[in-house]
Amino acid sequence: MYELIEKKRDGYELSKDDIRFFIQGYTHGNIPDYQVSAWLMAVYFQGMTRAERAELTTAMAASGDQIDLSAISGIKVDKHSTGGVGDTTTLILAPLVASLGVPVAKMSGRGLGHTGGTIDKLQSIPGFHVELTNDKFIDLVNKNKVSVVGQTGNLTPADKKLYSLRDVTATVSSMPLIASSIMSKKIASGADAIVLDVKTGAGAFMKQYHDAKDLAESMVSIGNHVGKNTMAVISDMTQPLGKTIGNALEVKEAIDTLKGSGPDDLTRLCLELGSHMTVSAGIADTADEAKKRLAANLYNGKALERFQTFLESQGGDTRVIDHPELLPQAAYRMELTAGKSGSVSKIAADTIGTAAMMLGAGRATKGSEIDLAVGIILHKKVGDPVRRGESLLTIHANESSVEAVKEKLYNSIELSDKAVDPPDLIKNTIFE
Amino acid sequence: MYELIEKKRDGYELSKDDIRFFIQGYTHGNIPDYQVSAWLMAVYFQGMTRAERAELTTAMAASGDQIDLSAISGIKVDKHSTGGVGDTTTLILAPLVASLGVPVAKMSGRGLGHTGGTIDKLQSIPGFHVELTNDKFIDLVNKNKVSVVGQTGNLTPADKKLYSLRDVTATVSSMPLIASSIMSKKIASGADAIVLDVKTGAGAFMKQYHDAKDLAESMVSIGNHVGKNTMAVISDMTQPLGKTIGNALEVKEAIDTLKGSGPDDLTRLCLELGSHMTVSAGIADTADEAKKRLAANLYNGKALERFQTFLESQGGDTRVIDHPELLPQAAYRMELTAGKSGSVSKIAADTIGTAAMMLGAGRATKGSEIDLAVGIILHKKVGDPVRRGESLLTIHANESSVEAVKEKLYNSIELSDKAVDPPDLIKNTIFE
Repeated sequence: MYELIEKKRDGYELSKDDIRFFIQGYTHGNIPDYQVSAWLMAVYFQGMTRAERAELTTAMAASGDQIDLSAISGIKVDKHSTGGVGDTTTLILAPLVASLGVPVAKMSGRGLGHTGGTIDKLQSIPGFHVELTNDKFIDLVNKNKVSVVGQTGNLTPADKKLYSLRDVTATVSSMPLIASSIMSKKIASGADAIVLDVKTGAGAFMKQYHDAKDLAESMVSIGNHVGKNTMAVISDMTQPLGKTIGNALEVKEAIDTLKGSGPDDLTRLCLELGSHMTVSAGIADTADEAKKRLAANLYNGKALERFQTFLESQGGDTRVIDHPELLPQAAYRMELTAGKSGSVSKIAADTIGTAAMMLGAGRATKGSEIDLAVGIILHKKVGDPVRRGESLLTIHANESSVEAVKEKLYNSIELSDKAVDPPDLIKNTIFE
Repeated sequence: MYELIEKKRDGYELSKDDIRFFIQGYTHGNIPDYQVSAWLMAVYFQGMTRAERAELTTAMAASGDQIDLSAISGIKVDKHSTGGVGDTTTLILAPLVASLGVPVAKMSGRGLGHTGGTIDKLQSIPGFHVELTNDKFIDLVNKNKVSVVGQTGNLTPADKKLYSLRDVTATVSSMPLIASSIMSKKIASGADAIVLDVKTGAGAFMKQYHDAKDLAESMVSIGNHVGKNTMAVISDMTQPLGKTIGNALEVKEAIDTLKGSGPDDLTRLCLELGSHMTVSAGIADTADEAKKRLAANLYNGKALERFQTFLESQGGDTRVIDHPELLPQAAYRMELTAGKSGSVSKIAADTIGTAAMMLGAGRATKGSEIDLAVGIILHKKVGDPVRRGESLLTIHANESSVEAVKEKLYNSIELSDKAVDPPDLIKNTIFE
């Protein structure tokens, strides 16, 4: 290991064998943390080549259980988002692309953050369960083209161990390490092809566009290097995606979108990501063609129908589709009104996310309880005109006094006297 | 600690409090190795400012016992060499500068390397002992101006712990860390002023002149920053210093030099270093004046007389001065003769050192036994003419067959058909 540290420190490329030795040794506890952290800091300064990143990803993916999805027919495409505020795309995309025949075999985690993960959101639907046997999961995907289950097994233990160490040694923000970490999990989860949604802006991990682009390029390069067809969309996260932030609230928004009446930006992003998933799965030849077919299924009810089948097959109460009041409801609703007339010039996604977390919508730590009912509904987005006294957003809370949250929300929204253009939603698409 | 790693990683200067917190926390086991090694690697890339180096040095010096030499009158000047092959200067300098009244209170370690340390060399003198009570040590320095004892106590535990970690994380070769490590030990040893002998060339830690200069400047800066008058001489270590390599052999060479008949280079370097020690101690106004007075004491017997007093006071058999055969003697002597006539163009100090170690003159690991009798006597130095068949050196061995050593020595010496200039001995002197 000493030689590996020295090699990286001095800017030389590590071999396949070097990286395998390192990841296997570290996973099995034969290489001490103090050597690994020195190596990580050397990587922070020296970076990693394309071949090194691919090998690190493969070695981490191979460090624990690897999901075998070969019993599912078709090309399994996984979609991954780097995380943002109000990101409900998975709930919509899964039935949407399944309605065209793209197999969606999704394993999802609970996740930390402003709101819960996909699994948490689904569990706000009465009766829905996410624990299925492997056989049942595969059966459902073959039959309905869609199933979502909670992550089980010991996936990428090397990545988990490395991440914990990075977290305490100021080596998290290294692009090759971030890219390898994400990609190792996708590869261990058994995807044949991967569509990445890399967010950029205040509410994203990558605040700056050039960092998001770096990360996207790095991940796309790794994916294709290891034989998984991979592409990335870089999308806006300066303001929250869609109009709701909160678990049950986002489920309702997903249903609205599947009915063809969702917020413009959320609908557009789902069609964009969905079109690339459809092409990657070999179900359409071009993204444009795929997009048209997906849009048709949003408006002709086929996507919603697939969502209904999906709920039914996992025990969910399908009445929520037409009766959203069956989803968990918060006790209190408060409006935040505009202090002046103008155009919305800023809705800081990060602050909105923090406010949602303060309401109880997200987990600060692994052990935290989530309140599925609470959250925020935006009535305006950046570029929208607003009149003095008009409601900017509604807070759904389970406590009667939320002054600190209101204060945070007030500070997160800016109004301008001039007309404001909404931000570009799709900033770029990155292919190999 | 996380913030300290981040700060250093991003190139910001750590405060006094940051560094104290780090060294105290690490010494007491409150900061884990894996965070420290990440920090060390960040230092490797980002360096340390003058103020940071000084603070790190002070904090490490304060991490354990600190020797109090205040009961010794006068300015205590310590000499430190960064280590080379055949470096016998301490044995000569101690009595030499003491003969002018410079107090020499030397604590010496055993050390690893090609030959033993000063303590090992002194122990080749029958009866000489290096374990003295602190009071006795101080008494002797006040009375005779010179005493040398083995290091006791727990000096700079932070440095020891850091060094062990650097050793396994490829962060040894960081200039600020090397400089702080050396200086912390000197400062904990109670020196008022410090004269550094920084070696450069094949047999030195710093092979390249510019690295040696960097290290010298860094140490001189630290010393003066923390209030210790510090200067450095940069001297040649492409070939061994003097003509002998080995413990008892170097004692004899030191005695010869104190009699005024030592090798030119060794004598010159001792006068150079001694002159700066004398000036630092306030015993002479200029180095030139000091050098003249020191040279006089080499030739008028006063330095040798002081050496005799020094031996006597620590139980050593003073008859060795005129009867070097009382020192440990090796069983076998073999000559290495020149294969052709010419000028000596190279005597690779590192290879000669390794050969001495193979004979048993040095310790490879802490537990190794040293053979005080064995070693090498050079008859030629770089620039000397030599005739075919003439002896280049004599091997003093305690085994009859030393073919591998001979082979190594043959390869370490080059002869040229052209005249060769000897290397410059004193490359530079560095003052604040």
